Amino acid sequence: MSSNRAVAYKSPGVVEVIDTDYPTFELKDGPGVNPANVGRKVPHGAIVKTIATNICGSDQHMVRGRTTAPKDLVLGHEITGEVVEVGPGVEFIKVGDIVSVPFNIACGRCRNCKEGKTGICLNVNPDRPGSAYGYVDMGGWVGGQAQFVLVPYADWNLLKFPDRDQALEKIMDLTMLSDIFPTGFHGAVTAGVKVGSTVYIAGAGPVGLAAATGAMLLGAAAVIVGDMNAERLAQARSFGAETIDLTKGDPGEQIEQILGVPEVDCAVDAVGFEARGHGSDSGHEAPATVLNSLMDITAAGGALGIPGLYVTGDPGGIDEAAKKGSLSISLGTGWAKSLSFTTGQCPVMKYNRGLMMAILHDKVQIAKNVNATAIPLEDAPRGYAEFDAGAAQKFVLNPNGYLDAD
Amino acid sequence: MSSNRAVAYKSPGVVEVIDTDYPTFELKDGPGVNPANVGRKVPHGAIVKTIATNICGSDQHMVRGRTTAPKDLVLGHEITGEVVEVGPGVEFIKVGDIVSVPFNIACGRCRNCKEGKTGICLNVNPDRPGSAYGYVDMGGWVGGQAQFVLVPYADWNLLKFPDRDQALEKIMDLTMLSDIFPTGFHGAVTAGVKVGSTVYIAGAGPVGLAAATGAMLLGAAAVIVGDMNAERLAQARSFGAETIDLTKGDPGEQIEQILGVPEVDCAVDAVGFEARGHGSDSGHEAPATVLNSLMDITAAGGALGIPGLYVTGDPGGIDEAAKKGSLSISLGTGWAKSLSFTTGQCPVMKYNRGLMMAILHDKVQIAKNVNATAIPLEDAPRGYAEFDAGAAQKFVLNPNGYLDAD
Amino acid sequence: MSSNRAVAYKSPGVVEVIDTDYPTFELKDGPGVNPANVGRKVPHGAIVKTIATNICGSDQHMVRGRTTAPKDLVLGHEITGEVVEVGPGVEFIKVGDIVSVPFNIACGRCRNCKEGKTGICLNVNPDRPGSAYGYVDMGGWVGGQAQFVLVPYADWNLLKFPDRDQALEKIMDLTMLSDIFPTGFHGAVTAGVKVGSTVYIAGAGPVGLAAATGAMLLGAAAVIVGDMNAERLAQARSFGAETIDLTKGDPGEQIEQILGVPEVDCAVDAVGFEARGHGSDSGHEAPATVLNSLMDITAAGGALGIPGLYVTGDPGGIDEAAKKGSLSISLGTGWAKSLSFTTGQCPVMKYNRGLMMAILHDKVQIAKNVNATAIPLEDAPRGYAEFDAGAAQKFVLNPNGYLDAD
Amino acid sequence: MSSNRAVAYKSPGVVEVIDTDYPTFELKDGPGVNPANVGRKVPHGAIVKTIATNICGSDQHMVRGRTTAPKDLVLGHEITGEVVEVGPGVEFIKVGDIVSVPFNIACGRCRNCKEGKTGICLNVNPDRPGSAYGYVDMGGWVGGQAQFVLVPYADWNLLKFPDRDQALEKIMDLTMLSDIFPTGFHGAVTAGVKVGSTVYIAGAGPVGLAAATGAMLLGAAAVIVGDMNAERLAQARSFGAETIDLTKGDPGEQIEQILGVPEVDCAVDAVGFEARGHGSDSGHEAPATVLNSLMDITAAGGALGIPGLYVTGDPGGIDEAAKKGSLSISLGTGWAKSLSFTTGQCPVMKYNRGLMMAILHDKVQIAKNVNATAIPLEDAPRGYAEFDAGAAQKFVLNPNGYLDAD
Repeated sequence: MSSNRAVAYKSPGVVEVIDTDYPTFELKDGPGVNPANVGRKVPHGAIVKTIATNICGSDQHMVRGRTTAPKDLVLGHEITGEVVEVGPGVEFIKVGDIVSVPFNIACGRCRNCKEGKTGICLNVNPDRPGSAYGYVDMGGWVGGQAQFVLVPYADWNLLKFPDRDQALEKIMDLTMLSDIFPTGFHGAVTAGVKVGSTVYIAGAGPVGLAAATGAMLLGAAAVIVGDMNAERLAQARSFGAETIDLTKGDPGEQIEQILGVPEVDCAVDAVGFEARGHGSDSGHEAPATVLNSLMDITAAGGALGIPGLYVTGDPGGIDEAAKKGSLSISLGTGWAKSLSFTTGQCPVMKYNRGLMMAILHDKVQIAKNVNATAIPLEDAPRGYAEFDAGAAQKFVLNPNGYLDAD
Repeated sequence: MSSNRAVAYKSPGVVEVIDTDYPTFELKDGPGVNPANVGRKVPHGAIVKTIATNICGSDQHMVRGRTTAPKDLVLGHEITGEVVEVGPGVEFIKVGDIVSVPFNIACGRCRNCKEGKTGICLNVNPDRPGSAYGYVDMGGWVGGQAQFVLVPYADWNLLKFPDRDQALEKIMDLTMLSDIFPTGFHGAVTAGVKVGSTVYIAGAGPVGLAAATGAMLLGAAAVIVGDMNAERLAQARSFGAETIDLTKGDPGEQIEQILGVPEVDCAVDAVGFEARGHGSDSGHEAPATVLNSLMDITAAGGALGIPGLYVTGDPGGIDEAAKKGSLSISLGTGWAKSLSFTTGQCPVMKYNRGLMMAILHDKVQIAKNVNATAIPLEDAPRGYAEFDAGAAQKFVLNPNGYLDAD
Repeated sequence: MSSNRAVAYKSPGVVEVIDTDYPTFELKDGPGVNPANVGRKVPHGAIVKTIATNICGSDQHMVRGRTTAPKDLVLGHEITGEVVEVGPGVEFIKVGDIVSVPFNIACGRCRNCKEGKTGICLNVNPDRPGSAYGYVDMGGWVGGQAQFVLVPYADWNLLKFPDRDQALEKIMDLTMLSDIFPTGFHGAVTAGVKVGSTVYIAGAGPVGLAAATGAMLLGAAAVIVGDMNAERLAQARSFGAETIDLTKGDPGEQIEQILGVPEVDCAVDAVGFEARGHGSDSGHEAPATVLNSLMDITAAGGALGIPGLYVTGDPGGIDEAAKKGSLSISLGTGWAKSLSFTTGQCPVMKYNRGLMMAILHDKVQIAKNVNATAIPLEDAPRGYAEFDAGAAQKFVLNPNGYLDAD
Repeated sequence: MSSNRAVAYKSPGVVEVIDTDYPTFELKDGPGVNPANVGRKVPHGAIVKTIATNICGSDQHMVRGRTTAPKDLVLGHEITGEVVEVGPGVEFIKVGDIVSVPFNIACGRCRNCKEGKTGICLNVNPDRPGSAYGYVDMGGWVGGQAQFVLVPYADWNLLKFPDRDQALEKIMDLTMLSDIFPTGFHGAVTAGVKVGSTVYIAGAGPVGLAAATGAMLLGAAAVIVGDMNAERLAQARSFGAETIDLTKGDPGEQIEQILGVPEVDCAVDAVGFEARGHGSDSGHEAPATVLNSLMDITAAGGALGIPGLYVTGDPGGIDEAAKKGSLSISLGTGWAKSLSFTTGQCPVMKYNRGLMMAILHDKVQIAKNVNATAIPLEDAPRGYAEFDAGAAQKFVLNPNGYLDAD
């Protein structure tokens, strides 16, 4: 059996690359595996040799110690790879297929999956609807920042790329299909972005940049990205977004300078619960800041897409309310404007095929837009550190040497 | 010129029937009229002699002193009547038409009206998008708990009933089209109610009962209404809703007794910002209680329709946050379940024609369901008082003697 | 191995109950099995002991000799039963479950299934997208007018009823979930039926009655059914539909007598390609009659739902065009009115769970509305003959004695 | 009173520029004015001095003598201009505004307008729902290929550009908002075009090119345009569309060469009833060719957007069926694939604001894509002739000298 090098969470601020077991068609006991999932048979699974596996902002919540993630949890839910083995229940996916793995694990058999709501599958996580690889409280499916990973319900979950050579050529774009491109796009879609919309996106990290890219693909007239990190804002401008520097104040006034009115049609929260204050408050954690400011700058009748993660419990919250996941929301502002709000994990499968087509036909350059940067698997600790420090890069791990840039 | 008796707000807890001016085709200065609206010409208006005009729960917010409504503000935004005069710019509405007046005033010419978002018309309220008759901070259009009322943009706003005799025969049902029936229905629609859905409605006041009626009309499999008022719960049961007595605890457990699971597909907040705690907390105002409990009892992937009013400022709020309209929301709970939320005034015009058809073809009995009760205009103070005390009735004022029951 | 009595097509006008093989987890060669499907392994399948299995109007097309169905084809695609065996790849469906089988066979793994388009699954029929049990040119999956039937992809396809006793009590309603109730409902949904709509349904056979039932469940204000069969029209009136006798002329004038206007908002074609002329033309086959008359009586901006079957080739067509499936359509009429049209098999899975909930909560009585009548399996030939002669009944076969009425 | 030079239809193949009356706020008798509209007062109207007014393919149907258009009918329904006078009922539109006039005339007060269905307004055309300027059987509203034109219901119909200078700078793009850009876009939208879709557009005339532009703006992965005119195909390629030369055969095979599969997700009919055969049949009129071939090359589950005009009567039809507007449609093919179809006039108002925003923010170059070419009003006869001969140009008349290129 091959070895399987993998990125593991060790303690707040610390990740390491460790030796782990090569996957089999069973979910074995291990760090963070839900007892009810231990020993679960996976004949419907495929073993994927990772081609590219990305570091995600939501991994950082765990690494910063803001969750109850256990020591030695193998991280990673943004996985693209080659199928090297399939279980006996797999019919359509074949060894040798190059595939994208949606970060949400879904059974393809429950009511929610049948309705396309694969982010809240009922059968994969004994704790609650919805699951993901390598994530705390998500059932214990082993993470994919590793050389090999087990993908359950492979016929349902995997998106096969039509041509191997073409896929490998565009792999730095295609690797964004596992999470951030659909997630950002979902933010734009649920914010109601249509041809001609004006859009504000809070946060210029990779999800924010993907949301901006998605809004452009949907035909938005103007896409404005706000952040406090100058380098990330420069990245947003590199592909045509307008930007707002939130260290200089609240976004409304700056939006007015750009659009002539202080409001946009659509707003996306690509920040989530670790939000920080704007302007003179900047730097202090202020979990409701983003949502409250989005209600201020969204025009009546607009919508907020909220792909940014909000949690039910946050040991590192700034006060008792935040620790329980409660936020002080100016709901009256939203109500007076008849706003609507969509929260939750992106159901990747709803979007990944269409976005793949846009990539394969050269309609979008998501890798360039998020500044995708390949690094060796063994450099993952550095990638985590630089990303946490605000690098305007999306780090793509290269565990098996498929990627050119290394 | 005729006199025009009308219901006016006097002071917290006090309304009186007073003499007011007969309307003309101009918005004159008066209590609560926005200066920018004073003297506005209304050649597109119609003068409506009221047949039925209802007391609404949202009027109570003003009467309880929870707003900045000025003394002598004429109340009333639920208006049904006969057109007795039309301005020179009116082309299709005729004198003698029996009409329903949507409570939202809309111009029929702005971007939002063109998109069907008549609850946030851009041209009728100088303060913000959206307006209503007889309501604080809504531009100053005179209320319709009166014998006569001016309806601007009559060709756009008025819904004409096809037959006068039929309309008068079903008038107690049709009078609900001006507000609560569409409002409750909008709550059900935006909560995602479909054929076969399970639905929970917070609040058994008239809007809650209308939401329950609407959910049934949409084909819901089970409609459950929760309240702390036994009489109102009995009213909900009278037309087939299941009920939950919130004085006995949170709704989840009782939902499980009814449905076998502790969750519903869809939830409607028909309470708003003056919510009170449940169970042992009942009786204390707890503005976020309803929304937080709805997130608890809505299944993953569900939606919340929020027709209940939330305000941007509440002088009577229980604490500083509530006074600013901020609520402590467990957003993480909603996010983990991928819930969506729709707030705001119901755009009545989107629904009133269809609901009228359902009434005229005897598919729904909204008057019976909300226990519509006609009383003389002069008895309005009693109606306000009894309604505020929790009567399981919807009071319909009868200013011109059209109604049988008086 | 048990025997397996089944209804087979013998020749035009002739069906017989014959002995067939008990199913195994493999699709064996047999009448009408596509060569590419012969020997296909079905480890994901379940063997269902039929509780109820209905005769469908679309079966009649084959039995009348209007298709290329081969001798000894086992018929039947409306199946409800008890799971008696599951393949090794089945995880969630259990022996003993009482289940409804959607007539469309779907893999739950292809692009179309992921989008909810289970009527055009890409992986079950080598000839074209979409499949069904016991139907010509649908891949060769063996029909279910039999004691036992194999259901592939059981975890995906089967709808499990929550409670065995409750299911058996309501079995005559629940058996309509496999086809005609969703199919009629799909017709109403795609015709745009909403609360308050006026609806015309062409055809008072079981699908037409199910469409009428569906339109009522969706809140239609008026549902009008047209046919030339007096007994079927009486059946439609029995549950509150209005009716039009097409032997007395085209529907427009009669609609005007009912509604006051000669048009409806929504129209459903529940007849299909074997349509006959109206009025003085009645009795002659006139395949485009229904569609052309629906365009006449649908108001501008309306929609036509077309669940009635239209075929690509019809050996019994009245002329060369009809034999190729070409119809002379007054498209200009539709275009001038901005009509839209939805065709094709109903994707049963999109609706069956919601309709099941409506049945289980007593919101609809579909068995009564279509006059469901249980008969022994051995009486199937009589059922086919009476149904073809225009009986106002929906025949439900009772192959294993579960049904009371027998 | 100013003179008012205008383009008029004289006889089949002949248009002339003639002197006509300057408009007043009344619809006077004249060629093609419906008697019921004669003398209609238009206090809600605005008089627009045309800046740009385009020749449309649908004008050609009249000019070719394929309709009952009367002699001296003033043509033109694609109008952009400056407001020079407003009636007493106009409140928000002001003299000096630069505006786009949707080709559909709509009242903004009827049920259909309230639902956004402005292509089938109930109050402007006594013959049937829907109207347009300068078009046969559309009520008689005078055409706008003239120096001045009356626009009724100006507050509702007119789209005001936010800035005069910016509008004049981009006027060749903005002039496409009155008809072909929304019409082509509507074709793409109703064909179901989404991010990542593959799209086939029948016809490379201006509407086809606008549909291709619209499909790209919606994020299509591949847009393929088919025609038999080499110059128009070259125009399509100039902005990134793939093309198919239909003189070389049916489109399926050529689509397979481009996409690897012989089908697309979405199809648009931008040709209409004057279609000609493909391949060896090319040149012969074959009115059902386009629709039947689109059903062949659209994948199961797809949709057809049909902005191309189909008529209820065609004096020049190739046979009796065509003269009545009947087409021999292979409906069985569409049904087997579960296709849907959307017909009718584009409701311009649903799209023009968003497309304007896309133009003003430089997201789309519609003028370049359709090869917009300004010519003097007096050269209209030449423009009609060259366009009819197949020029790959969209002719924009310049009646008042605003346009640079002349």
